[in-house]
Amino acid sequence: MNRIIGINAVYESLKSSRVKKLYLEEGFSNQRIIELAKKQKINLVYLSKKEFLKFNNENNQGCVAETLPFKTYTLSEILSDCDVKKNPIVVILDELNDPHNLGAILRSSDVFNVSAIIYKNRNSVSLNETVAKVSAGAINYVKCCEVTNLNQTIATLKEHKFWVIGLAGEADVDLKSIPKDCPLAVVVGSEGYGISRLVRENCDLMVKIPMQGHVSCLNASVSCAIVLYEISTRK
Amino acid sequence: MNRIIGINAVYESLKSSRVKKLYLEEGFSNQRIIELAKKQKINLVYLSKKEFLKFNNENNQGCVAETLPFKTYTLSEILSDCDVKKNPIVVILDELNDPHNLGAILRSSDVFNVSAIIYKNRNSVSLNETVAKVSAGAINYVKCCEVTNLNQTIATLKEHKFWVIGLAGEADVDLKSIPKDCPLAVVVGSEGYGISRLVRENCDLMVKIPMQGHVSCLNASVSCAIVLYEISTRK
Repeated sequence: MNRIIGINAVYESLKSSRVKKLYLEEGFSNQRIIELAKKQKINLVYLSKKEFLKFNNENNQGCVAETLPFKTYTLSEILSDCDVKKNPIVVILDELNDPHNLGAILRSSDVFNVSAIIYKNRNSVSLNETVAKVSAGAINYVKCCEVTNLNQTIATLKEHKFWVIGLAGEADVDLKSIPKDCPLAVVVGSEGYGISRLVRENCDLMVKIPMQGHVSCLNASVSCAIVLYEISTRK
Repeated sequence: MNRIIGINAVYESLKSSRVKKLYLEEGFSNQRIIELAKKQKINLVYLSKKEFLKFNNENNQGCVAETLPFKTYTLSEILSDCDVKKNPIVVILDELNDPHNLGAILRSSDVFNVSAIIYKNRNSVSLNETVAKVSAGAINYVKCCEVTNLNQTIATLKEHKFWVIGLAGEADVDLKSIPKDCPLAVVVGSEGYGISRLVRENCDLMVKIPMQGHVSCLNASVSCAIVLYEISTRK
């Protein structure tokens, strides 16, 4: 069982029929959630304010759900679900560590129609409570794929006609250079170190977001969203 | 005194000469930070791993600084520092609550050359440790302005020739409709409720980011960054 916390995230989990049990704080009054839960005949448990403290999360908004386990997919499942003719986009995360970033990337990926988020099954943040909350429910819609080796994954994606685009502040060209009318894999580096050397060498093209200012780079989830926005507006 | 946590944030605070005292965990080896601190004759205090736990922050990376208090500015200071002929951009936050969002907006505002971030002195998140950490040092460069009344502030900005642009998913036109060649104030709504009614009525134009997917909106800091990116690429 996984736990989903907060009104938006719980509502989206209800909509996708993944909630098994719902804890509400006494006085909880969001009718949209209560009605949907009753309609689905979900086990509703009302708890006192004091009992609710056990969830150990300040931002629970009086609403915590137990859901089916977060689902992940294999690369072959992702590829067989993608229609290469429709120029799908996947996002590859190279050792991202911050659950806030993964949550925000899930949310942006849903908004900009990303087919899958791919990350390593080691040395990376994976799906958890914080990710689910920050994703505002997108965790129920965007496919996540855990792989053992990113470079092998990139090779496979290339065989399937994907162009692999890496994001780095020191790249020579900007986002406008991303090719149109082909499947794209966008690689986002880790918060501390960016994209690792070998992965970078395997990218077809490195691009940058034009930046001014003193701070050397943007937050990983912000960079990812800007690239997805740029790609989506050119279609 | 304020506290700044983590390698990037401390490094940027050192660069802007705001650090008064620096705590490092035994074995801390980032020479860039140690050398800059020594050059500025800053009081360096080495603590054991156990003593470092008192800072109560898992992501301190063995590096915590005490700095000058975070500085805020008045609206008149912001306006007298802005050159209206250079079409400056300010960001207005309408009751934003999440310190991660404020930190990320500071970081994007530095990157996209925003002249100031304006928010209410009540019912809003303000500058604190988490904001400083997430801002990756941008807190030292971007001017923040706390005001009592956002609608009065908007009226004053309009007198100074700013166009006031509100962000909302249900707007009729998209970001490409934002006027060029004029000073801009970009209004970002709160995480839960968006832009409040009166502030919305006072906006010159409401714009949306084109979205697909199931989740109804983007994260506040992500939306803000996308608008700033769009404006910056059109200059």
